[in-house]
Amino acid sequence: MKKMIAIGGLVLLSLVLIPVLAVAEAGEAAPAAHGPGITLLWIAFILIAAKISGLVEKFGQPAVLGELLIGVAIGNVVLFGISIFEPIKTDSIVAFLAQLGVIILLFQIGLESNITKMRQVGLPAFMVAIVGVVVPFVLGTYVVGPYLLPGLSDNAYLFLGATLTATSVGITARVFKDLGKLQMREAQIVLGAAVIDDVLGLIILAVVSAIVTFGAASLGTISVITAKAVFFLVGAIVIGQVSAPHIGRFFSRISSGTGMKFTFAISFCLLLAYLAELIGLAPIVGAFAAGLVLDAVHFRHFRSPKVVEDVEEAIQGFEPKQKARILKAVEPHVHKHVEDLIEPVGHFLVPIFFVATGINVRLETLFDVKTLMLALGLTLVAFIGKVVAGYAAGKGVNKLLIGVGMIPRGEVGLIFASIGRSLGVVNDSIYSIIVIMVILSTLLTPPVLAWLLKRQDKDVIVLHSRATAL
Amino acid sequence: MKKMIAIGGLVLLSLVLIPVLAVAEAGEAAPAAHGPGITLLWIAFILIAAKISGLVEKFGQPAVLGELLIGVAIGNVVLFGISIFEPIKTDSIVAFLAQLGVIILLFQIGLESNITKMRQVGLPAFMVAIVGVVVPFVLGTYVVGPYLLPGLSDNAYLFLGATLTATSVGITARVFKDLGKLQMREAQIVLGAAVIDDVLGLIILAVVSAIVTFGAASLGTISVITAKAVFFLVGAIVIGQVSAPHIGRFFSRISSGTGMKFTFAISFCLLLAYLAELIGLAPIVGAFAAGLVLDAVHFRHFRSPKVVEDVEEAIQGFEPKQKARILKAVEPHVHKHVEDLIEPVGHFLVPIFFVATGINVRLETLFDVKTLMLALGLTLVAFIGKVVAGYAAGKGVNKLLIGVGMIPRGEVGLIFASIGRSLGVVNDSIYSIIVIMVILSTLLTPPVLAWLLKRQDKDVIVLHSRATAL
Repeated sequence: MKKMIAIGGLVLLSLVLIPVLAVAEAGEAAPAAHGPGITLLWIAFILIAAKISGLVEKFGQPAVLGELLIGVAIGNVVLFGISIFEPIKTDSIVAFLAQLGVIILLFQIGLESNITKMRQVGLPAFMVAIVGVVVPFVLGTYVVGPYLLPGLSDNAYLFLGATLTATSVGITARVFKDLGKLQMREAQIVLGAAVIDDVLGLIILAVVSAIVTFGAASLGTISVITAKAVFFLVGAIVIGQVSAPHIGRFFSRISSGTGMKFTFAISFCLLLAYLAELIGLAPIVGAFAAGLVLDAVHFRHFRSPKVVEDVEEAIQGFEPKQKARILKAVEPHVHKHVEDLIEPVGHFLVPIFFVATGINVRLETLFDVKTLMLALGLTLVAFIGKVVAGYAAGKGVNKLLIGVGMIPRGEVGLIFASIGRSLGVVNDSIYSIIVIMVILSTLLTPPVLAWLLKRQDKDVIVLHSRATAL
Repeated sequence: MKKMIAIGGLVLLSLVLIPVLAVAEAGEAAPAAHGPGITLLWIAFILIAAKISGLVEKFGQPAVLGELLIGVAIGNVVLFGISIFEPIKTDSIVAFLAQLGVIILLFQIGLESNITKMRQVGLPAFMVAIVGVVVPFVLGTYVVGPYLLPGLSDNAYLFLGATLTATSVGITARVFKDLGKLQMREAQIVLGAAVIDDVLGLIILAVVSAIVTFGAASLGTISVITAKAVFFLVGAIVIGQVSAPHIGRFFSRISSGTGMKFTFAISFCLLLAYLAELIGLAPIVGAFAAGLVLDAVHFRHFRSPKVVEDVEEAIQGFEPKQKARILKAVEPHVHKHVEDLIEPVGHFLVPIFFVATGINVRLETLFDVKTLMLALGLTLVAFIGKVVAGYAAGKGVNKLLIGVGMIPRGEVGLIFASIGRSLGVVNDSIYSIIVIMVILSTLLTPPVLAWLLKRQDKDVIVLHSRATAL
């Protein structure tokens, strides 16, 4: 009920914004703009809409759900004849900033993740990834395809199965981040598994494409693709860990200010994102690796913040105990970690990605009952396939939470479907069904995940209060 | 001499970077990239190059000079047959980010400027702007044109004069900011005069275009253009000052965190930049007005930083004097002013503008001796016209500093020249001469300005030591 009110409020607010924009838009039509033009307006509009949608937090929902929903609202008011937002969908600058946004997000998440912790969850993450690829692939290719969509070619079923294997880490990572749970063992397993999934997905896509095109995939092709992907990840992390301190020292010699620290970090992120894309991986995998590699140690050559010096000067002559107390209070807030420097850029770009993702959702695909039913069937399989994967995570963790965390297919699933369509194996009807599955897996995961996390917190409290009662 | 070493070092370093990039570039040619692609690499490259060029600071030069010079180096290695950087020149995303960069810069400068202080310099700024438009226009149209470039049409001379009136505030503002002098009365006068210049320039451009097109400009057209521009500036500042606190309160009710504060500020900036462009002004004028309007008072509804609470808790029971001393040491560093939140975005985007400006400089235009001599003549006039304007600033200020601050023509001058060329009045030869004048006024101003500021500081020290000696 509360959620309904929140959503109603969002829609209402977005409707209030529209007339304001309409006036601005009508004016824009007149003079031919030179400079950056209307894109400035779209960016401002998306950012404000994203923040207004933050109202969902008052109802215990992660902010990312609000951003997705307000995006869906903006992208679908055209169904009511309001077409002023249509240009956003084709604005190449907005599309780029959205992609930059998800790169920055995964970089932030990499920075907040600890490489040692990630290594500790290496085995369960690998197991979750493998099961989370095999089960959906088998279900899609041999069960759902032939039963729900009889009469299609084997290749179409192959692609359907491949589409179900993808995991889009962006959504889940944002939910964990919004709710302050990124440090949980479960969150680390999901992140690790999603990265491995991306690598596995790349291999599957290449293999399936080869089968469709040539009738079979050579072992050589498969080996080359696999080697490239593994080499990149291992290489980025090893070379990064070895070279980052040296590069850091070099740059700190030019200037040790926060500007240099910021530039060093963000350039490293963009470079690895670029290199990941170069070898055919998603750029976000490179950004995540960059964040994982860069940790505090690489910035030791950069100046410590002046506030510590100033406070130390102010408390000269105090008792050591007093001194320690004050410095302890100051420390966590003022040390300009690289995370803090990246944060405003994240505030700027990350919401653009999620609102844009929502904007590109086509609600009209849900209007055809038969398509919708088939899509619901496929979605159910998509859920089951990944929830099962969660149970491969081993003991001592919330398996359901991990499985649900792996559900969102996001843009990765859409890329699969698009390639399938361009190869002529996926027809328009299957494409629509896949798109709906991706939408539902993306929109339903945040509230379910939030609910699971809250239930777990409650269980801990209940256990705790029982323990104290004994 | 020192400067030569600096420049040599820059060129050398940029040459070291090239092979690294060449390898990446060669690899890129192979697979067709989906996502954001090579633009990520260009952004990383520009940011790193900008920071390496920061070495000029070790030679007492403002960082912006380094960014311009390294841009010139990157953009002109093609003269030595190295063409790998050519794609940067036509990358529309890089161009947009550069424009966003200068918008953010002027927003930052607006935020650091004080509206009351600006009002205090209103009259001298207005005088400097008027003289700085009239003198170069008269010199260009009636002296330089007919004498240096005889045999052209009166309309060509009109455009030449109009081009000389423009002031590009970005360069000068960066120099003042780099050297920590934005709060000087002289800096405030230059900023105010440059904004007024932009408005005057707009009017002149419209009038000159009308004369060229229709043989005359109607008083009605001139009035409409003037009214629009004045209305925007006054309107933005008045409405902004009245409404910003209310809008701020509205957003702080949704969330009072730094993310909301940041979004509120940056959206306001982008919105005003867009509106400025909509009515035909430069977007940077809107961004500057946005910064001027938003000051601390509009953020009083946002949460005070937690560090103050934590420190206050840690020093409970201390003597009031001790307490005050500690809080005083903490305060200036930890209060998250909106300037601090915008700063990382500035670190990200502002260097892109200056490096891109350098990249678009075509050194080959300097190779023709006759063109070069004519360009030097025009540049001299460009310098004289604005230096004279500085003397309209009244008493008690460094008039030469103000005049030199008004010299850079930057992209505004180039826009004038382009429009003249599209109207068929400015031929290729005059266009080249104008471009060289713009280049020289842009590249020579930072070192001259830095030198004047340092000389002034020395004078103050000398005066001070004389005073203490008495």
